[in-house]
Amino acid sequence: MSDSRITVSLVEYVEGAVRFYATDLQELERRGLAYTKAEVFYNPHMRSNRDIAVAVASTLGEGFSGADVMAASGVRVLRLAAEAGGGRLIANDRNPLAVYAIRKGVRANELSDRVRVWMMDANEASLKIRDFGRVDYLDVDPFGSPASYVWAAVQAVKRGGVLAVTATDTPVLYGVYPAKLHRAYLAWGEKTEFHKEMGLRLLAAFVLRVAAMYDLVATPILAHATRHYARVYFSIDRGALRALNAFEENVGWILYCQRCGWREVKRRSYPPEGEVCGFCSHEASLIGPAWLGEMQNQDLLSRVIRWSEEKPHWISEEARSILRALASEVGLPPLYYDLDAIASRMKLPSASPRAVVEELESRGFRASMSHCEKKAVKTDARLEDVMAVIKDLARERA
Amino acid sequence: MSDSRITVSLVEYVEGAVRFYATDLQELERRGLAYTKAEVFYNPHMRSNRDIAVAVASTLGEGFSGADVMAASGVRVLRLAAEAGGGRLIANDRNPLAVYAIRKGVRANELSDRVRVWMMDANEASLKIRDFGRVDYLDVDPFGSPASYVWAAVQAVKRGGVLAVTATDTPVLYGVYPAKLHRAYLAWGEKTEFHKEMGLRLLAAFVLRVAAMYDLVATPILAHATRHYARVYFSIDRGALRALNAFEENVGWILYCQRCGWREVKRRSYPPEGEVCGFCSHEASLIGPAWLGEMQNQDLLSRVIRWSEEKPHWISEEARSILRALASEVGLPPLYYDLDAIASRMKLPSASPRAVVEELESRGFRASMSHCEKKAVKTDARLEDVMAVIKDLARERA
Repeated sequence: MSDSRITVSLVEYVEGAVRFYATDLQELERRGLAYTKAEVFYNPHMRSNRDIAVAVASTLGEGFSGADVMAASGVRVLRLAAEAGGGRLIANDRNPLAVYAIRKGVRANELSDRVRVWMMDANEASLKIRDFGRVDYLDVDPFGSPASYVWAAVQAVKRGGVLAVTATDTPVLYGVYPAKLHRAYLAWGEKTEFHKEMGLRLLAAFVLRVAAMYDLVATPILAHATRHYARVYFSIDRGALRALNAFEENVGWILYCQRCGWREVKRRSYPPEGEVCGFCSHEASLIGPAWLGEMQNQDLLSRVIRWSEEKPHWISEEARSILRALASEVGLPPLYYDLDAIASRMKLPSASPRAVVEELESRGFRASMSHCEKKAVKTDARLEDVMAVIKDLARERA
Repeated sequence: MSDSRITVSLVEYVEGAVRFYATDLQELERRGLAYTKAEVFYNPHMRSNRDIAVAVASTLGEGFSGADVMAASGVRVLRLAAEAGGGRLIANDRNPLAVYAIRKGVRANELSDRVRVWMMDANEASLKIRDFGRVDYLDVDPFGSPASYVWAAVQAVKRGGVLAVTATDTPVLYGVYPAKLHRAYLAWGEKTEFHKEMGLRLLAAFVLRVAAMYDLVATPILAHATRHYARVYFSIDRGALRALNAFEENVGWILYCQRCGWREVKRRSYPPEGEVCGFCSHEASLIGPAWLGEMQNQDLLSRVIRWSEEKPHWISEEARSILRALASEVGLPPLYYDLDAIASRMKLPSASPRAVVEELESRGFRASMSHCEKKAVKTDARLEDVMAVIKDLARERA
């Protein structure tokens, strides 16, 4: 290949019911380049993200309108059309090669009557959608933080429609870099033993806060932390007063003890002051503003699961198992307990989460595994109760 | 006038060096309508706002580029061209009648070669400017809160350029409605005895925080609270690390005692916890995130004042007197003391701010009046010291 020649090599992929074109990942690998160097980026590890998106969008009904403002290969929009029954769809990307690939994909799947392809900045696309006809479903799926796209995106969704937001800057969102967390999400957080759910709740509150500036309400209806991404779906409503009420009722602060793992939530706008650990009296860390309400809408989740289970040829087992795990978490209070961390502090062997859930239930508590972590348990029991269970289970085995 | 006829009546106004067209305010008044009902809005009470804008922009040098994304009658842009030497200017408004009026104004002042007129949403205009050529000066001057325009506006300014932001939702920004304050500016605040400077500092921190999401730094260089508006000018720089440093150094929290008026600032990202009043030990209120650094850039202010004093035919005495007042505040710590409020708590007659400033200076403190309030004093003295001065002055007069 001479230096004066540019060779673009797109390869056909298949996902769900569609085929589409993207940069050849194997070729990239042969050239020693990372996934992220692909000009038309397709990440097969994010399939569960798209599977669940398609299943959620299917609940909007045949012919719904939708957009992916950072569409890349367009696979998500093609699937929204071919699998979820989307009618008036927009695939936008600012990269002309992506637009080229999307057009090829639209034709290959004979979806030209349902998918339009735009080439502009994601925020500009959202504002155009706002001005020329809001959509039932809008997806913001950037590489990195979605924070700088939320402002425009919330305005582009119809009342009663769904906004879906992905974050892949999870070290930031999960509290590894507190200064960056504040810079990206205008929130305070740090490393915790429930970092993934913390991240989901900070992301949810961020979107709610930004939406409120536009007299919009963004209520979380489904959220999951999977692999290296966090994903929250919101139902969009209108009204300044509703936005204020959403704050009052469900946004607040998480108190956390770095020494013993104790945590508590406070439903209040102002940062609580002078709080100490309710277990060991160590100074409590302050995390928030966080969404403290339900992260999963039970009714929606049931419909999404039912639809997905009927479509195993399109919706991966990974996605379906995430959805089932989410269903088991409904109604449990915020945050989870990391069994390894607690057992390690107690200098005991860790316990099986299934055994801990069963034991907590037998003691009258509600409990379930968390979809976020293999060794995590969500429960309405206090830290002391979880510790007692771990201790008793260790004794039984001894 | 029959119902089937629409009569648009624009009248010529003069401000500074330009004439321009806007809705006839006297006619509105005759019809019993408020200023805010004008289709092409011109508010003569905001003249000081524009006077100072022109003076600040003049420091950018002959031929600078600029935009007003909510231009209304266009008076500001016309003045930027005719008085400040602006070269490539954009007057944008989403209202077609405003665009019509601006075009008439451009022609009346023979500025067609320097002013282009756009008709779009303010955020769309900012994004267009970002994509097709950032400007040296950008003005965001909405009716109400500027919060929903800041994210696009910060991206439209060149490195080293100036962003100017007006807020007219001052009851919100000044802490009268804490829930609305959080909704609009993602900050916490309440009524205080330094509410105007609090508002300026919350607005400054808000813009800084939003800019940081885009790896931009917005540093306040001039700020004033005048009549019913708050106004902050920012110098725009680039760099994720610089943005983080700006936080660390100059953004933090204000502690305030509702009982005795005591206040203290804390330069830290996390909300401080468990703070009590340093004077009366009452629980301290938490206000922030607030900009705690210098609000006025001394060098810029000197140039702005020098330029303005040479242009008394364009720059009103009101504006020049605000600028002189700002100069006297340079270098003094954040926030001011409200003499009436303090004296009233002490059950003493209030003192003349000039006398208090002189007395504080004679006791070795730095002090000046505040441009925000007639009966307010800025000083590096503590509350106790100010109280002692008020007491001594009252005794002298007795």
